[in-house]
Amino acid sequence: MRTIVSIDIGGTRLRAAAYKQDQIEPISQKRVETKAKEPNAFGRLINLLEDIWPKNEKVAAIGVSSPGPVDPHTGVIMITPNIKEWRDFPITAKLTDHFGIPAYLDNDANLAGLAEWKFGAGRGHHNVLYLTVSTGVGGGVIINDQLLQGHHGLAAELGHTTIQSDGPLCGCGQPGHLEAFSSGTGIERFVAEQLKAGRESLLHPDKKNSAHVISEAAKQGDALSIEAYQTAGKYLGIGVANFLHAFDPSIVIFGGGVSQSGPLLFDSFHTSLKERVIHPRYLEGLVITRAELGDDSGLLGARALAELKLQN
Amino acid sequence: MRTIVSIDIGGTRLRAAAYKQDQIEPISQKRVETKAKEPNAFGRLINLLEDIWPKNEKVAAIGVSSPGPVDPHTGVIMITPNIKEWRDFPITAKLTDHFGIPAYLDNDANLAGLAEWKFGAGRGHHNVLYLTVSTGVGGGVIINDQLLQGHHGLAAELGHTTIQSDGPLCGCGQPGHLEAFSSGTGIERFVAEQLKAGRESLLHPDKKNSAHVISEAAKQGDALSIEAYQTAGKYLGIGVANFLHAFDPSIVIFGGGVSQSGPLLFDSFHTSLKERVIHPRYLEGLVITRAELGDDSGLLGARALAELKLQN
Repeated sequence: MRTIVSIDIGGTRLRAAAYKQDQIEPISQKRVETKAKEPNAFGRLINLLEDIWPKNEKVAAIGVSSPGPVDPHTGVIMITPNIKEWRDFPITAKLTDHFGIPAYLDNDANLAGLAEWKFGAGRGHHNVLYLTVSTGVGGGVIINDQLLQGHHGLAAELGHTTIQSDGPLCGCGQPGHLEAFSSGTGIERFVAEQLKAGRESLLHPDKKNSAHVISEAAKQGDALSIEAYQTAGKYLGIGVANFLHAFDPSIVIFGGGVSQSGPLLFDSFHTSLKERVIHPRYLEGLVITRAELGDDSGLLGARALAELKLQN
Repeated sequence: MRTIVSIDIGGTRLRAAAYKQDQIEPISQKRVETKAKEPNAFGRLINLLEDIWPKNEKVAAIGVSSPGPVDPHTGVIMITPNIKEWRDFPITAKLTDHFGIPAYLDNDANLAGLAEWKFGAGRGHHNVLYLTVSTGVGGGVIINDQLLQGHHGLAAELGHTTIQSDGPLCGCGQPGHLEAFSSGTGIERFVAEQLKAGRESLLHPDKKNSAHVISEAAKQGDALSIEAYQTAGKYLGIGVANFLHAFDPSIVIFGGGVSQSGPLLFDSFHTSLKERVIHPRYLEGLVITRAELGDDSGLLGARALAELKLQN
């Protein structure tokens, strides 16, 4: 029985948990705040790990989930938002030095996909497309029961797929990415542009209207807010059609806050996806569903990564 | 030593060859014309195979490359252009019935990619993106030394990636696919539209100007023809940036006639690719090159598929 220790480096919290093989619930877990300016963040992480380290079990490996760009092949965190000290930080080498066991790293979207494949909505599927739709759009892809990582470890950056080469700017600075249309930020941009152009709405033109506020206005029947979500859904369908043509998965799993908008987003998504797919066979038996694991997807994905790497 | 028999179902020719393991040259090979209307095409194929079947070697498996839609998981050719009789045709089951050995099938673009990975420009790479740019645009993707086939066997249809959601129609009927911009057909469409709009050119507005004729006019300095190829290259760069973000390969290999246009196509391609990639790391060490295997890519790809499947 292999026991795995998982670390989830979140925006505001640093979490750790220990898992026994074949048990979904951790045998121990703890979370602390991510403190941006505190020095010795690695020392704090070690303390956290020692707090949750199993007393009576041999730990086989450590898995780490981190937001932002990482190199999974070398185990280096390039940047992580709230721990400024961790820039080009070789976290897996440092963990292995300290604990004497292997450690594995990947980014949060890839690992959320892996977690859903192993423990969540994607169980039993061999080819999984996971998309998180929240402030941005991120992807995770499982092909034949293996995580798609790529040569530089930068695969599955699916939010940055150009679907309208002269379209609105994405947060990354490039025009017409899926993320620019279908993320919370994209929905907010659409509304702000329309309000600026004098469009009538329940929403106030001088306020920063969040995707959540816009969804509330949509529920009250605000035509602009409804259109903003429908437009996001339409482009999401175009993007997912691209991903079906590229990866041909048997399941598409949506995580992230914006993906919880229900028919407001997904009616136009389904219409657009059906229109844009080049052959109906892509949709035969295709499951389109919501993520099951919520906040634990980072910990469970890091765990699944460690288990997968130990097997290979 | 495993010996493999390969079949390449081309548009105009049916080819077969027998290969000894670790020898790139076939021990025997033959080609016959694909005759559209002749009944009993399978009988002709069997005759062809018996002609090239090795006398002193045990054959381990048969590999088959076919254009058009196939189901690699069931070994069924859905449609193949010049053999109308082969519609929903279970070719691998029939070959196994006849010869008593396993048979494996995939489409020509996937297998050209696999051939380049095993025997051609992609040797030694583990993550390969192959693109054929000719009348259409096709793709083949190798991930961690495995061919990407997908759940329905329909993965890597990369020509049908939407890069301009309201763009010109692709041959498949959908708007704004990479193929509509960067294939020979796309180049011809661009020129025809510009000529119709009264643009001056060496090319005759009432003629059907082929991509080849357009490239010849470009060599003579025709501004419209040069722009047509530059535009195709620009959009090809946008498409390949999408594929780097999705697959993160270590090599991009171009096959197909249009990809032999040199700087006329590739100067704007490289400029556009560099502009559109979201992080320079995708380009670190990335090899961008031309296919090496030419007409033999179907036979060699079918062989590589059989070898890969026997290993798994």
